[in-house]
Amino acid sequence: MKFISIIMGSKSDYEIISETAKILEEFDVKYEMIISSAHRSPARTHQYVEDADARGAALFICAAGMAAHLAGAVSAYTIKPVIGVPMGGSAVNGVDALYSTVQMPAGIPVATLAIGKAGAKNAAYLAMQILALTDENLAIKLKEDREKQAKLLEADSKKIEVLLGGAK
Amino acid sequence: MKFISIIMGSKSDYEIISETAKILEEFDVKYEMIISSAHRSPARTHQYVEDADARGAALFICAAGMAAHLAGAVSAYTIKPVIGVPMGGSAVNGVDALYSTVQMPAGIPVATLAIGKAGAKNAAYLAMQILALTDENLAIKLKEDREKQAKLLEADSKKIEVLLGGAK
Amino acid sequence: MKFISIIMGSKSDYEIISETAKILEEFDVKYEMIISSAHRSPARTHQYVEDADARGAALFICAAGMAAHLAGAVSAYTIKPVIGVPMGGSAVNGVDALYSTVQMPAGIPVATLAIGKAGAKNAAYLAMQILALTDENLAIKLKEDREKQAKLLEADSKKIEVLLGGAK
Amino acid sequence: MKFISIIMGSKSDYEIISETAKILEEFDVKYEMIISSAHRSPARTHQYVEDADARGAALFICAAGMAAHLAGAVSAYTIKPVIGVPMGGSAVNGVDALYSTVQMPAGIPVATLAIGKAGAKNAAYLAMQILALTDENLAIKLKEDREKQAKLLEADSKKIEVLLGGAK
Amino acid sequence: MKFISIIMGSKSDYEIISETAKILEEFDVKYEMIISSAHRSPARTHQYVEDADARGAALFICAAGMAAHLAGAVSAYTIKPVIGVPMGGSAVNGVDALYSTVQMPAGIPVATLAIGKAGAKNAAYLAMQILALTDENLAIKLKEDREKQAKLLEADSKKIEVLLGGAK
Amino acid sequence: MKFISIIMGSKSDYEIISETAKILEEFDVKYEMIISSAHRSPARTHQYVEDADARGAALFICAAGMAAHLAGAVSAYTIKPVIGVPMGGSAVNGVDALYSTVQMPAGIPVATLAIGKAGAKNAAYLAMQILALTDENLAIKLKEDREKQAKLLEADSKKIEVLLGGAK
Amino acid sequence: MKFISIIMGSKSDYEIISETAKILEEFDVKYEMIISSAHRSPARTHQYVEDADARGAALFICAAGMAAHLAGAVSAYTIKPVIGVPMGGSAVNGVDALYSTVQMPAGIPVATLAIGKAGAKNAAYLAMQILALTDENLAIKLKEDREKQAKLLEADSKKIEVLLGGAK
Amino acid sequence: MKFISIIMGSKSDYEIISETAKILEEFDVKYEMIISSAHRSPARTHQYVEDADARGAALFICAAGMAAHLAGAVSAYTIKPVIGVPMGGSAVNGVDALYSTVQMPAGIPVATLAIGKAGAKNAAYLAMQILALTDENLAIKLKEDREKQAKLLEADSKKIEVLLGGAK
Repeated sequence: MKFISIIMGSKSDYEIISETAKILEEFDVKYEMIISSAHRSPARTHQYVEDADARGAALFICAAGMAAHLAGAVSAYTIKPVIGVPMGGSAVNGVDALYSTVQMPAGIPVATLAIGKAGAKNAAYLAMQILALTDENLAIKLKEDREKQAKLLEADSKKIEVLLGGAK
Repeated sequence: MKFISIIMGSKSDYEIISETAKILEEFDVKYEMIISSAHRSPARTHQYVEDADARGAALFICAAGMAAHLAGAVSAYTIKPVIGVPMGGSAVNGVDALYSTVQMPAGIPVATLAIGKAGAKNAAYLAMQILALTDENLAIKLKEDREKQAKLLEADSKKIEVLLGGAK
Repeated sequence: MKFISIIMGSKSDYEIISETAKILEEFDVKYEMIISSAHRSPARTHQYVEDADARGAALFICAAGMAAHLAGAVSAYTIKPVIGVPMGGSAVNGVDALYSTVQMPAGIPVATLAIGKAGAKNAAYLAMQILALTDENLAIKLKEDREKQAKLLEADSKKIEVLLGGAK
Repeated sequence: MKFISIIMGSKSDYEIISETAKILEEFDVKYEMIISSAHRSPARTHQYVEDADARGAALFICAAGMAAHLAGAVSAYTIKPVIGVPMGGSAVNGVDALYSTVQMPAGIPVATLAIGKAGAKNAAYLAMQILALTDENLAIKLKEDREKQAKLLEADSKKIEVLLGGAK
Repeated sequence: MKFISIIMGSKSDYEIISETAKILEEFDVKYEMIISSAHRSPARTHQYVEDADARGAALFICAAGMAAHLAGAVSAYTIKPVIGVPMGGSAVNGVDALYSTVQMPAGIPVATLAIGKAGAKNAAYLAMQILALTDENLAIKLKEDREKQAKLLEADSKKIEVLLGGAK
Repeated sequence: MKFISIIMGSKSDYEIISETAKILEEFDVKYEMIISSAHRSPARTHQYVEDADARGAALFICAAGMAAHLAGAVSAYTIKPVIGVPMGGSAVNGVDALYSTVQMPAGIPVATLAIGKAGAKNAAYLAMQILALTDENLAIKLKEDREKQAKLLEADSKKIEVLLGGAK
Repeated sequence: MKFISIIMGSKSDYEIISETAKILEEFDVKYEMIISSAHRSPARTHQYVEDADARGAALFICAAGMAAHLAGAVSAYTIKPVIGVPMGGSAVNGVDALYSTVQMPAGIPVATLAIGKAGAKNAAYLAMQILALTDENLAIKLKEDREKQAKLLEADSKKIEVLLGGAK
Repeated sequence: MKFISIIMGSKSDYEIISETAKILEEFDVKYEMIISSAHRSPARTHQYVEDADARGAALFICAAGMAAHLAGAVSAYTIKPVIGVPMGGSAVNGVDALYSTVQMPAGIPVATLAIGKAGAKNAAYLAMQILALTDENLAIKLKEDREKQAKLLEADSKKIEVLLGGAK
């Protein structure tokens, strides 16, 4: 059984990271989600990662703020891909979390995405792009979604467009 | 035929991004590598991505500096995973490239790694972690490499260790 | 028929960039305006730029936030002047969009303006300054506007001035 | 007689801004170039701008570092387009000059380019793109240059390309 | 007749800079105050500075935001001390105004104070410290104020102090 | 009598730094707390530090914002450990206070914690960790608290967990 | 047996962190020192911390760069004080390491010092200040060192002093 | 006897701050100069400031780096104007020193100048501008110097000028 594991470092990250879950559900992709901290529950985090890894987690999505060590700590315990979503809301607006997530040393990568909600949404997309490498069905859904998004944008455009008799 | 595609935005990125190639070679992972710019050769970039995608590129690794649009532009043309390596060396030491690579809008993710050489090395590792999801052999090699790296660190430690008769 | 083309990367940019349109209207300068994204609708963006260019777009004004690639992507497809307005509102308050817009490589310039509303207003002014090079009428209007702005400032000053019997 | 006016704030900017002049010469575009400071020779700067404006300066390119007021000061004295090139080399690597150049108030735009050499080169390109709006010959040259640059990039690529029997 | 001249670049700076005026009034120090912009009314600014200088302005206090050139422009036209107060409220929270004000080239100093309200208050204090060099009366008032402020702080402390039977 | 001394630079820091006091009270650790500024009441600060030091202050916790000199000034007058909590809320969101607190010269350390509330809470924890080196009872309480925090996190997790029939 | 434990995340940190060791030696304070990474050897780090803690480590000094998780990871496994020294030398000059070290969540403090060499030296001083709370001898040495440093500074001053017949 | 007092926080600041002394000597302005630290020799600094103040110091110029508290500490002990020159060369290139110097609380101003050498030179100019308020001779010299600097700039310009038969 293959699934995506989502870990957030604190319950305060729930609102943002639930955007990831929402998109995975729309695409019928299995996931599980827990709260566990690299600092406040390191043993539980370690144990959970090894357990989830053994149970079939294809990859891990980690959301954390400030000195955001969660994604790095998870990456240290698995060779599965780890996606990091830096949380905003700190004194320095998430730049601390961005640096703590992206500036990993050679050998222990964290695939880092945008600070906050856009990053949370893209965590779902990146995870599905990875799964789609061996899931033709999901690949088709992702392509259809791309086209849908482009059309939505075009529809948004129609509402405000000012065009000077163009051929377009 | 599955392979990894590496694109750099300028020949000046070659020295750094060849670190990616070096590691892929050590692990016997097929890759191809070209120079193509999102800005100076957009048509070629577009065409190459579609072609490489069709020929079996499993994922794309993009290295670019300054207003580093390459990874985002590639991600816009494929649903394969795109890994971005921000190049340093600009007036603001690569923070421009980091922001241009990581702050992508929802729907078009770029898996961003550290600025410069550590990021280039991790591009190879992250790419292999993704391939290893369906390549047991590669997964084993990655695990062995982790252990080797930990042992090298321990060996480095031995050379400078000061220990006070500890049980360790 | 000569006109100014305004492209915004997302409908959320509309409120800010409509400041550009408002000023162009005050000066009776023709423009058209659409939403199209460098990432979410790259084909439409490409096609629109070539079409607008052929139809007589004198220059392009692009508004985008975060990894703001729009202005750079447009500049890659035309040799008409491209003006970039970085949007604020991101985790790092638009510094990401500023760097993504201004730090372009040699050969593909983007004329970058201030983050947010001041930049949106100046996009109209810069565009008109360019058109005024061959439009004497517009040049006169711009000079009159300058004088009007200076007088408005002086009028604002009168309301709060504290002057010590000066000759002024 | 139409020409481009280049002003640098200090002789220490000469090495960088001569890149602008070099490119204008390659394209046979007339320019003049002086050193004049917004702070150390404000009267001379003011007088020069009005004089050059009257003599046919189509636009102004201003290079300055630190509290880089030059482009803004020039823009305050003319309605011709003003291009600003922030100089690096300060304690904060040119971020001071970038902010001082780009963050102009509504009504007085400065078309800002990248910090340092890339910005200096693009000052020439942006200036020529503006002139090319009414100079068909120059427009053709700029298009040819674009193609040449793309081909140079492709040639650079050929030297380091690793291709896996691709159709490309 | 000796007085302090306060110039703000925009009416939006009034709320902050009126803090300066308030303190000068408390200490019975003469000042005058106008709105004039380095960019939108450069001629008026130039003319005002020379006029105020001639009429007895001892020093100038300049408040401006974003590409805050006002203090530098004033300093370029006088050898009287010029105090700069960077305004916050921009996309980058006043760091642009701070750099534009403080990073002046050798020969044209601007005495820069904190961003926003604290800076506005200190503009009054710094100005009075300068005047007090030759105004014994004002020097005494400043010393008394220091003591008063220290006592106010001590009184604030008393309200929240937790002391463990200390000798203090 | 051993106690912890808390000094804040301004009454506006009270809300944040009272978090420190709250935690010390929960653990029954003696503290005293005053307002005293490095700048506005330097003599009082100096005198208080020497007095508190003599009366048995084990360590000092200093909260200050902007050019946050308080912790450094205290550290200059004692060889007891000094903990610095940078206050947010400034134009640059506390980065000024962070740098002013952490970037101390060799010989005069300040143990710096996170900007704002998290730092204020950790000031209590770090202080107790230091006291616990020679207070077995407190050490036990700190270990129990760690376990309690981990369990609270687990309880938070239970409320939102999505688990796919895992062994966990 | 009480001692100080120094851990560095990579052999490249040795040159800087050996400054800590040098000072501890000058003061005859016992320490041990190893290389162990939070990411590349997490198991070894965990095991070492628990072992050193049991063997009598009074506190831990951790030096790491980039996404500097080491100090935080150590703090998660012990209630002994943990001192963090952010290493410079990264693309962003150690600001990444500073944020990753200082911005810890409530409950798991890291006593953070300056980036690089000054921080490494102060790690020794802060550690000794903590030990000196219950080591009168060490307290005396620290006080003597303070006086010595002040005298050295005064001696440095004598070499360059320009004094105008002052009473000093 | 009126003089300017220069204090540097460390002998490593000597090279930069001697630029201040050099200019004062050129203008025959009396100064004295010592090394004294806010942190490493606080008592000496305090005592020196009160002594110099009493002996006739008109104002203080303070140069310090990193957590640059020196200017603020001096300002806390005198109501004479205090000029701060932030030193570069730290991990964050002097931004720490800039914030520590400029972000002073209301009531205790520090007149802050540019980071490094430009700031050191301007410390001399600002000091002399203050003295010139009551020293007509010095005022004349400053005006002559301005003209000389403008002429030097013009002479520099002549060497590299490219002029297209202008009236100038």
